Amino acid sequence: MDAITAHPSTALLTDRYELTMLQAALRSGAAERRSVFEVFTRRLPAGRRYGVLAGTGRVLDAVENFRFTTPQLDWLADQQVVDQDTLRFLADYRFTGDIHGYPEGEVYFPGSPLLTVEGTFAEAVILETVILSILNFDSAIAAAASRMTAAAGGRPVIEMGARRAHERAAVSAARAAYVAGFSATSDLEAGFTHGIPTTGTAAHAFTLLHDSERDAFTAQIASMGRETTLLVDTYDLNEAVRTAVEVAGPGLGAVRIDSGDLTLLAHRVRRQLDELGATGTRIIVTSDLDEYAIAALAAAPVDGYGVGTQLVTGSGHPTCAMVYKLVARASTPGGPLEPVAKRSAGGKSSVGGRKWAARRPDADGTAEAEVVGTGPVPAELEPHLLHVPLIRKGEVVGREPLAAARERHLRARAGLPLSATQLSKGEPVIVTEQLPG
Amino acid sequence: MDAITAHPSTALLTDRYELTMLQAALRSGAAERRSVFEVFTRRLPAGRRYGVLAGTGRVLDAVENFRFTTPQLDWLADQQVVDQDTLRFLADYRFTGDIHGYPEGEVYFPGSPLLTVEGTFAEAVILETVILSILNFDSAIAAAASRMTAAAGGRPVIEMGARRAHERAAVSAARAAYVAGFSATSDLEAGFTHGIPTTGTAAHAFTLLHDSERDAFTAQIASMGRETTLLVDTYDLNEAVRTAVEVAGPGLGAVRIDSGDLTLLAHRVRRQLDELGATGTRIIVTSDLDEYAIAALAAAPVDGYGVGTQLVTGSGHPTCAMVYKLVARASTPGGPLEPVAKRSAGGKSSVGGRKWAARRPDADGTAEAEVVGTGPVPAELEPHLLHVPLIRKGEVVGREPLAAARERHLRARAGLPLSATQLSKGEPVIVTEQLPG
Repeated sequence: MDAITAHPSTALLTDRYELTMLQAALRSGAAERRSVFEVFTRRLPAGRRYGVLAGTGRVLDAVENFRFTTPQLDWLADQQVVDQDTLRFLADYRFTGDIHGYPEGEVYFPGSPLLTVEGTFAEAVILETVILSILNFDSAIAAAASRMTAAAGGRPVIEMGARRAHERAAVSAARAAYVAGFSATSDLEAGFTHGIPTTGTAAHAFTLLHDSERDAFTAQIASMGRETTLLVDTYDLNEAVRTAVEVAGPGLGAVRIDSGDLTLLAHRVRRQLDELGATGTRIIVTSDLDEYAIAALAAAPVDGYGVGTQLVTGSGHPTCAMVYKLVARASTPGGPLEPVAKRSAGGKSSVGGRKWAARRPDADGTAEAEVVGTGPVPAELEPHLLHVPLIRKGEVVGREPLAAARERHLRARAGLPLSATQLSKGEPVIVTEQLPG
Repeated sequence: MDAITAHPSTALLTDRYELTMLQAALRSGAAERRSVFEVFTRRLPAGRRYGVLAGTGRVLDAVENFRFTTPQLDWLADQQVVDQDTLRFLADYRFTGDIHGYPEGEVYFPGSPLLTVEGTFAEAVILETVILSILNFDSAIAAAASRMTAAAGGRPVIEMGARRAHERAAVSAARAAYVAGFSATSDLEAGFTHGIPTTGTAAHAFTLLHDSERDAFTAQIASMGRETTLLVDTYDLNEAVRTAVEVAGPGLGAVRIDSGDLTLLAHRVRRQLDELGATGTRIIVTSDLDEYAIAALAAAPVDGYGVGTQLVTGSGHPTCAMVYKLVARASTPGGPLEPVAKRSAGGKSSVGGRKWAARRPDADGTAEAEVVGTGPVPAELEPHLLHVPLIRKGEVVGREPLAAARERHLRARAGLPLSATQLSKGEPVIVTEQLPG
């Protein structure tokens, strides 16, 4: 366990206005009103056909670790962010409400009620920022990753974007990519923290360090064995492949190509390897790939893809547009929940009321609609309800191994109409139906 | 101090191949060769006229805290990432070399040698990933932020994108935005960790929580005083502004508009506020702003901008393309440095040799070229050299207050040709000249 997992206070990963609202509500008495907040998105990124929910497991940790430490409270006092009453509330803060929602790895659509947080206004409002940070980032990565693993067919895809992302975001990106079907990551912290398989052998610097490419390959084989992957594009590709097989023998594990026209080069290198008898040596490609480049390589003799920048930046969509909205609240402390919604002419409207959601299948079992309602659940939809309990009376009940989310994602994606994994721009692959309450 | 700042091991924020290269180099004997790595970028994001270096201060912390803990070492052993010799090396690891580079907040251009890391191959190679993660992310945010503060003229710009970024990346984004001239952030952890001013009052949920908008405004004023900012677009804007001034009086601090046609609404609200006698009440706008929207509001009666999504996603360019390349190394442990460079036909070439850089001014003192060389520095460029020492023999010597980087950025930007801050797509505003060695 590193420091972050061992002492992970998440309490200040919070917009200041959450705490000032809390203070004003404590003073007005409204803080104790039972409230329901909903995480949803009004739209998918332009052209995307489905979203992928990731980060739920991290949200559970973040809520559990939403505890204010003494130095944090002292700082809030010193900066006069909130008053003494509010500081006392924060010092004792534990979330005691309920959270349910879509399980991690599920697909989603505009209007899907992804997470429902229910408690007093005071305890629920201050979780907004950290919950949205986690879900918006992790889901953006998972959505891109899912398109990449779909494009790769059965070939393994490796996450190697740490250097192009914030150093801690990179760890979560590796996790989200794994949920969406990636095989491994280059990021050691992601292995250490989340148990994701790690991989990697050498960079161009290793070849440049030695007096010759042959020396470098010899050193690498001596250290890692002939099953290793040799990087063959530092100088002349053809010569490097010949040297690689001379040094390692035909049992060489793999070669990696990191620049150039990968389709062309993969064919050329495959031919050369086969001629040298290295018929079992795999070819890994890793240069600025995205889902389109992966798809374009489908007919090339490639055995694995490494994806960096485009994965950790969500392939053009580095965040989601998820929001955390108050959809119902009681007007007296013990009173019944009443739906509420913003209704300004300027847009950003929301739909009031606590919601359920179900994915309705057609006769063949393929998803045909995301049905969202606030009233009673129609009997035929009961088996298809999407929400699972995540936190009950403040206790986490929805924790699961990461592999479960990964399996769920592949299953959920397979349950969508075939056009879901088309890479071209399109509409959400199923419609969202809002049932009147 | 929170957990991350108190116990910040950065050692596993590292691609696995750094450690496998280390192991192979320890075994081949090349690990002890004196080496020079350089951080640079081959290009700016398409259309951008200058880059902004941010994250240097965080790099210094990351290098200082690049220490392997026992649980980390046990995990590396358990996973057989590296062998026993390498584990012993890592257990004692301290960077003992030198780092110099552009100071934080400086502008940069393609080919600028942003950071030079010099030491043994072993000690320098394993810093690659964490250094690139920090600089690529923080500089992407700072570049977008700089365009936004330039577009805003003298009006304050507030960072409020935490919910649209990874929760820890958000803290660094707030820091980078501050370097590039932002006034404040919504993110409390950024205030706590980096001393950046924090701000924020209330969201739509606060209005929806109460039985009426009037109740909500009354509660907010009671808690925060009339100097607060009231959010006026939950229901009807016109009515909300009237209610706001009724409740707070004409001394109301500010109103915030978070949706709709902001130019139109700002004019309308200004007129209404003035008619109500609230001539000193400021107007803050916050809906999906980027540098173009900020510029479009220049003639509107707006007193401040809040920027979220587009700031934390780098306004279309969420990362930089900085790389960390071996540019020189000795071929014997005590021998002279020799330039090295990748020269594959596939692109991604680099320029060998340890470099200096200077920004040459024209007769008026405006920058006209970024001059980069590996040979002796021409005397007339001596006063314009850009590198500063950051780490000397393993000791951090380049730490500075964040305000210094912020001032430097505004000064450096002001020293560029006027076209630097044009928002339209263009070429780098000055050329990079590579002097032959």
